[in-house]
Amino acid sequence: MGCKLNAMNPAILADRFKTLYYDPHQDAVILLNRAKYPHEIEYVACRTVEEVARAIESMIVQGGPPLAYAAGLGLALAPSTAAGYQAAARRLLATRPTADDLHHIIPAALKRALDALATEEDAKQAILDYVNSEIERGNRVSRLCGEHAASLLQDGDRVLTHCIAGAALCWMLWTAQQQGKSIQLIATETRPYLQGARLTAQCAIELGVAVTVITDGMPAHLMSQGMIDKFICAADRITLDGHITNKVGTFQIAIAAQYHGIPFYVLGYDGPDPQTAGADEIEIEWRNGEEVLYCAEKRTAVEGADALYPAFDITPPHLISGIVTDRGVFPPTLVRRYWSDAHLDLQE
Amino acid sequence: MGCKLNAMNPAILADRFKTLYYDPHQDAVILLNRAKYPHEIEYVACRTVEEVARAIESMIVQGGPPLAYAAGLGLALAPSTAAGYQAAARRLLATRPTADDLHHIIPAALKRALDALATEEDAKQAILDYVNSEIERGNRVSRLCGEHAASLLQDGDRVLTHCIAGAALCWMLWTAQQQGKSIQLIATETRPYLQGARLTAQCAIELGVAVTVITDGMPAHLMSQGMIDKFICAADRITLDGHITNKVGTFQIAIAAQYHGIPFYVLGYDGPDPQTAGADEIEIEWRNGEEVLYCAEKRTAVEGADALYPAFDITPPHLISGIVTDRGVFPPTLVRRYWSDAHLDLQE
Repeated sequence: MGCKLNAMNPAILADRFKTLYYDPHQDAVILLNRAKYPHEIEYVACRTVEEVARAIESMIVQGGPPLAYAAGLGLALAPSTAAGYQAAARRLLATRPTADDLHHIIPAALKRALDALATEEDAKQAILDYVNSEIERGNRVSRLCGEHAASLLQDGDRVLTHCIAGAALCWMLWTAQQQGKSIQLIATETRPYLQGARLTAQCAIELGVAVTVITDGMPAHLMSQGMIDKFICAADRITLDGHITNKVGTFQIAIAAQYHGIPFYVLGYDGPDPQTAGADEIEIEWRNGEEVLYCAEKRTAVEGADALYPAFDITPPHLISGIVTDRGVFPPTLVRRYWSDAHLDLQE
Repeated sequence: MGCKLNAMNPAILADRFKTLYYDPHQDAVILLNRAKYPHEIEYVACRTVEEVARAIESMIVQGGPPLAYAAGLGLALAPSTAAGYQAAARRLLATRPTADDLHHIIPAALKRALDALATEEDAKQAILDYVNSEIERGNRVSRLCGEHAASLLQDGDRVLTHCIAGAALCWMLWTAQQQGKSIQLIATETRPYLQGARLTAQCAIELGVAVTVITDGMPAHLMSQGMIDKFICAADRITLDGHITNKVGTFQIAIAAQYHGIPFYVLGYDGPDPQTAGADEIEIEWRNGEEVLYCAEKRTAVEGADALYPAFDITPPHLISGIVTDRGVFPPTLVRRYWSDAHLDLQE
């Protein structure tokens, strides 16, 4: 399945099986190190639950679905007892609070493990089968989401994006190319981890899409100069009432987009979190402020300065033009209908 | 004059004589290297007009008034003939287009040189006398501007700033301290040159003011969390109709401030440029995009990515709460009255 998809989309990040998988020979979870990619292409082998948890915390794997898949595979490394899986699940759930995928996959994988233990089946294999099926499903969701997003693009569009919008962004760009649309990508560098300057730019280059990197302070100015046609990014969690949380900086760009009348589309993958009614229920992760005082491992700020690092922010529905999912494009205030049969009426 | 001021304000950047001056022993313009400060304290000796021009272009000296003073002192290094001064003035004027101070000081200094040549006086000394008087005037303006700005602050204010707002910011913080007001500064790091993480943070630390560095993408989120009381920055040029141009990123934060109902004050020093009626007359400098692909001399973006570097942006008057000058605080739409006697009626 992974190979079939990859034969069509040349961007590595379009297929999660290329960047994270369980290797039975090493009994390890193998992760492309996204903190270094593409400056260095390094695969990290995690042989314990703790190593997987630390890889997630240190951004070796990042992005809502990818880190959830890594955690799910990591659960398979736990001691094969009920207590072992339960402790591992707690540790993995504690890694990062904001994106919802982790908080769906770990409980579901744990349930499969406990069910298997109860019937004396292979619990480890039950976890791996489940998580691999989720990765396959996630790849299909990404492609469908990207295809729907491509339908919103016009030939010549200059698309601003922030952080890395993942596999759906790759599929959006790939599909637009197949449709003969020429798209230019403008990527914010996305401090402090530079996902835009590294990961997003690399995806575009692999796809042959022209990409221009800007600092996180430049979007509004480029909008004022008529240099941006659309703003498109992903979301780490979408609420049933149409708020989205994404990498910090998204909200600021969304305000600027509305000020300039520029459409803002969210790549929403498999829709809102059915367990999150509104923005008050989202926990924004505060990471170590020290990370802001460095850039690419070099100290940038003067000694004696403090720092803050809220990793995400929340954008309300009135700043969003549409949420693109594998089932079509929803107005943000109606995104809860992703979970009802009526959603088909709302698709563009 | 310089020493007298410095005895009161401990921040080096509060007194321009401490960071740039003509040294008769070396026959050179000496510049604190602001591209490295405060990580390294290096004074660069420029012995020719060309060296001064390149120091300005490479951000060894930056900020509207400081770079204008450096250029003015640099004119004194030219061959002491009418043709020599005229060629030097052209070279220095071509260094950076956006801030207005350069375009006032160089023509005025050139006129003094040509007048001196015509009357067989010492043209070099005439230039130095004029520029030094301008630096003294600028120091007084900065202090008065900072004092007026301090009157807008309340005890406990958390003040967001962008880039480096220069000597007036130092005087604002110093004056607020004298008034017994506790102020916290939140400084955007200001990519790509990191003026906030370096210069602004250093000024705060020298003054004993608590300073927190954030990335350029975080202001709107902190505003939404009730963590910012005021946004205050400088301007490289102010138009007679109340537009301001400042380091790129300012406009985006100003939009976010208005969205959240947070006051935005501009440290306007000696007021609007009397020769710039509106925003259409401002030339925004486009610097080499390559500078965006690096951080602290380390490559951050992937090879193959393009980049853009508009150095400034323009914020319209309806996003500005007040423009603070040495003559008081003006509503942006009435800032042209800085140049009329009626300005006193408008002061807060």
